[in-house]
Amino acid sequence: MDNVLSVIPLGGVEEIGMNMTVMEYGEDMIIVDAGLMFPEEDMLGVDFVIPDFTYVIENREKVRAIFLTHGHEDHVGALPFLLREIRVPIYGTPLTLGLVKEKLKEHNLEDIDLRSIRPRDIIREGEFIVEPIRVTHSIVDGVAYGIRTPVGLVVHTGDFKLDPTPVDGQLMDFHKFSEYGENGTLLLLSDSTNAERGGFTFSEKEVRRAFEDIFSEAKGRIIIATFASNIHRIQQVIDVAVMFSRKVILSGRSMVANAQIALDLGYLRIPENTWLKLDELKNLNDNEVVIVTTGSQGEPMSVLSRIATDEHKQIKIKENDVVILSAKVIPGNEHSIGRIINHLFRRGANVIYEKVSEIHVSGHASKEELKLMLNLVRPKYFMPVHGEYRHKFYHARLADKIGIPKEHIFNLENGDVLEISEHEARKAGTVTSGRVFVDGKGVGDVEGMVLRDRRRLAHDGIVIVIITIEKLSGSVVSGPEIISRGFIFEDASQDVLTDVKDLVYLTLSAMTPELIADKALVQAKVRSVLKKYLRNTMERKPMIMPLIFEV
Amino acid sequence: MDNVLSVIPLGGVEEIGMNMTVMEYGEDMIIVDAGLMFPEEDMLGVDFVIPDFTYVIENREKVRAIFLTHGHEDHVGALPFLLREIRVPIYGTPLTLGLVKEKLKEHNLEDIDLRSIRPRDIIREGEFIVEPIRVTHSIVDGVAYGIRTPVGLVVHTGDFKLDPTPVDGQLMDFHKFSEYGENGTLLLLSDSTNAERGGFTFSEKEVRRAFEDIFSEAKGRIIIATFASNIHRIQQVIDVAVMFSRKVILSGRSMVANAQIALDLGYLRIPENTWLKLDELKNLNDNEVVIVTTGSQGEPMSVLSRIATDEHKQIKIKENDVVILSAKVIPGNEHSIGRIINHLFRRGANVIYEKVSEIHVSGHASKEELKLMLNLVRPKYFMPVHGEYRHKFYHARLADKIGIPKEHIFNLENGDVLEISEHEARKAGTVTSGRVFVDGKGVGDVEGMVLRDRRRLAHDGIVIVIITIEKLSGSVVSGPEIISRGFIFEDASQDVLTDVKDLVYLTLSAMTPELIADKALVQAKVRSVLKKYLRNTMERKPMIMPLIFEV
Repeated sequence: MDNVLSVIPLGGVEEIGMNMTVMEYGEDMIIVDAGLMFPEEDMLGVDFVIPDFTYVIENREKVRAIFLTHGHEDHVGALPFLLREIRVPIYGTPLTLGLVKEKLKEHNLEDIDLRSIRPRDIIREGEFIVEPIRVTHSIVDGVAYGIRTPVGLVVHTGDFKLDPTPVDGQLMDFHKFSEYGENGTLLLLSDSTNAERGGFTFSEKEVRRAFEDIFSEAKGRIIIATFASNIHRIQQVIDVAVMFSRKVILSGRSMVANAQIALDLGYLRIPENTWLKLDELKNLNDNEVVIVTTGSQGEPMSVLSRIATDEHKQIKIKENDVVILSAKVIPGNEHSIGRIINHLFRRGANVIYEKVSEIHVSGHASKEELKLMLNLVRPKYFMPVHGEYRHKFYHARLADKIGIPKEHIFNLENGDVLEISEHEARKAGTVTSGRVFVDGKGVGDVEGMVLRDRRRLAHDGIVIVIITIEKLSGSVVSGPEIISRGFIFEDASQDVLTDVKDLVYLTLSAMTPELIADKALVQAKVRSVLKKYLRNTMERKPMIMPLIFEV
Repeated sequence: MDNVLSVIPLGGVEEIGMNMTVMEYGEDMIIVDAGLMFPEEDMLGVDFVIPDFTYVIENREKVRAIFLTHGHEDHVGALPFLLREIRVPIYGTPLTLGLVKEKLKEHNLEDIDLRSIRPRDIIREGEFIVEPIRVTHSIVDGVAYGIRTPVGLVVHTGDFKLDPTPVDGQLMDFHKFSEYGENGTLLLLSDSTNAERGGFTFSEKEVRRAFEDIFSEAKGRIIIATFASNIHRIQQVIDVAVMFSRKVILSGRSMVANAQIALDLGYLRIPENTWLKLDELKNLNDNEVVIVTTGSQGEPMSVLSRIATDEHKQIKIKENDVVILSAKVIPGNEHSIGRIINHLFRRGANVIYEKVSEIHVSGHASKEELKLMLNLVRPKYFMPVHGEYRHKFYHARLADKIGIPKEHIFNLENGDVLEISEHEARKAGTVTSGRVFVDGKGVGDVEGMVLRDRRRLAHDGIVIVIITIEKLSGSVVSGPEIISRGFIFEDASQDVLTDVKDLVYLTLSAMTPELIADKALVQAKVRSVLKKYLRNTMERKPMIMPLIFEV
């Protein structure tokens, strides 16, 4: 084929997460999104995962720009790693860039060419003419992209839902999608996350009713855990807090940073004297307080987890506290979240979570919305993205149902190349793809971030800590035994080994039997302590895997 | 307190699973259920978990009998281990005992005194007078128990739901529960599994409609995965298969064994020439076949998993196959199940699962049913059982709402002792409790079962296998490195070590890159191969933990 456009998903089509799509025509290449994924439980000792973008690096001279759809980690989280290798302009809406800027600052990446765009702007980069389109999603200021190429128009929805009553009043730009359909769209890439789910996804505003019910009944403090990026949700908490004369305290570094960015850019409206600092907690009555925090996925070192296990200095759970987990349960996190819920209940809090109340709605379109998108845009070819095989399968089936021929639907995997011309489209080979593991996401831990590729594993190695604990007493009955590969303790002085053992003992002896029974917590703590120690004393960053056995 | 009854949960009140309750009065003790739990993902290298019944062993001369509520593994699975230590009569309904018998045979436990009972029978054991009561649940022939003690009546519901239209027509014995309430009940122990869930649980019969829809549309074979113990579900599959002129093939050892027991005892009705053997598959057209199998939780070595990964000898997935996962997703198994679904879709099957169709209903009572039970029985004291803290919390709240005083509600943990007399109840100390890990549940693997207590771990040890795989090619780039503790390879000949490495290589080279990308599968296979080898050559049963790294 001559004059052919290649569309190559490098991530996001075998998983929920690490979204990244490359479009290439002749000597020009653009990239839509560069996201990360949080690890699945079998990716031991890894903090997050990014796409292998070898193909982009190998074609560095072709890359014209990166276009971001919105500020979620699964769409922008791999940027710092990509920008270590290539420097190109990055386009995004103001909030998206605000969040990215903060992230780049942490990584000491300066002088990045960030270009702020508004919906319906027109950007030319090489042979591509790109137009952002307003969509509604669980983060504000999201866009889809209409991308004009020499072979035809490609529409990439990014993440979206059709929220008829968005919190910020910014409706989805139906008219533009409709215009694309009217004028002819060659290829649509669309969000498959909820393609298994019938009907319509509820509006974000529905959550407000649940909040109002809970606030009207609460006698004590209200603690709400959600994603730091969910500015809509934070806005609703603030609105309802004001309604019930409560002050809002934001806790957690990312929560505070995101809210400040959204506030500065005008995406968050907070009446004066409503957002207080954590230090002011002591001056407030319980029924005047709302605390908004992260940790909704049960992450063992998060603020919510520390609150749940009495390890937070300023916030101790007491009778009449209401804790709301206002976020979806990411599959695989059920046990960690269940753990936190049990800890909180045991300490007397009333815990409200997705299973027992309507305190969360999804940010992704369900079947009826996906069909509407397909019918509006009427693409000649269709590629479901943003999902595992089964999500994309269901999305493909919807496309089939509304009349797109089966041979025009491409359910690709990461690295597959879709070659497309005006008259033809076909899967044509693959490029290098895969998952790269990244370690070290803690606060101030940015220098510690390492890519877990082969060389690194060989260099920094792996440390396995085996501890056997007697559950009832919480005492260590055997171990810690330290096993290392790649990372050689034999090179180190005997002192280091003794220190490591002591550190593990100290960590465990500071924990109550109840907490020690929580193995996920023990693992997280041991890992965190050893990681810091080994970095400081030996300048090594091995993968650390504590294995805890109970007797 | 004089004349005091002690009620001691040894399992099932900190988890869903390993249900076991001890009741003790003077010199008499009875036990209700002795179940196992399937391991959570952090219990590496363990097949299942049973309660620590040290307290029962220490009081062996007091134990009069074990009463079983129904035949599910989480209620009877620990019996073989308990019966190695004590021999007492076991009471259960015919199907429950049928299933138990089969299990005891596998463990070579003979001459066990199994006593068949019917609802409303009266059994006296020491100071206890026990009456089984018919309940409806996801397995047939389940009972609750009314237990008359010198201090008053204790009612233990076992697992139940209020199914108004049970598949076998055996309604719950409302009248007996009502009589207990009328005459006065001292203590109720009731199933908390679904206490977070509003409304009523649907009748098992609702599943039939979904089956009928799927069967009427299916052009090819239908493969249904469910729990082998769900006789109701199997009955419904058979009924609908007959309606659509399909033959039924049962696959999987436990599936066949359970169905045969249920058939022999009259709990399963199968018209002649309907249940065929797997060998006859080749003589049937695709639209004449229903295959019922296990593996609904995505277990890597199950029949369904082997079908999904082209490793089943007789059953290969083809276009037009419909696969139905007709079972709940046990929390923690989302990833394993998602994995299987993706494999099946990729091979052309249409996969139908809980999220996309009504092909499963729960076997446990929801809030309205739980309140009805509380109102019927009107107990003076209440102990929620069968759940984690949060489930029991919600159940306790229901009891509070319907008027049971807070101080009469006991949310106990495993090993807590509830002392109760006619006029008083209180938490009084604890007995030894905990979780014991069991390894080795494979077919014919019964001699291999070992209790993972401290001595065993020290004796048989742990073997860690580290393998680094290149994802794209599926080739091993480093390892297998073998690390062992307790189990000392240094004692073994160099041959063994070489053999182990060869075995791992062989196992991996027999797998396609697609399967190698599935780490859970690689882990399961390596474990299974090494386990067998080490048992045969060295008579050792170490815990085997394969760690797979991808580059």
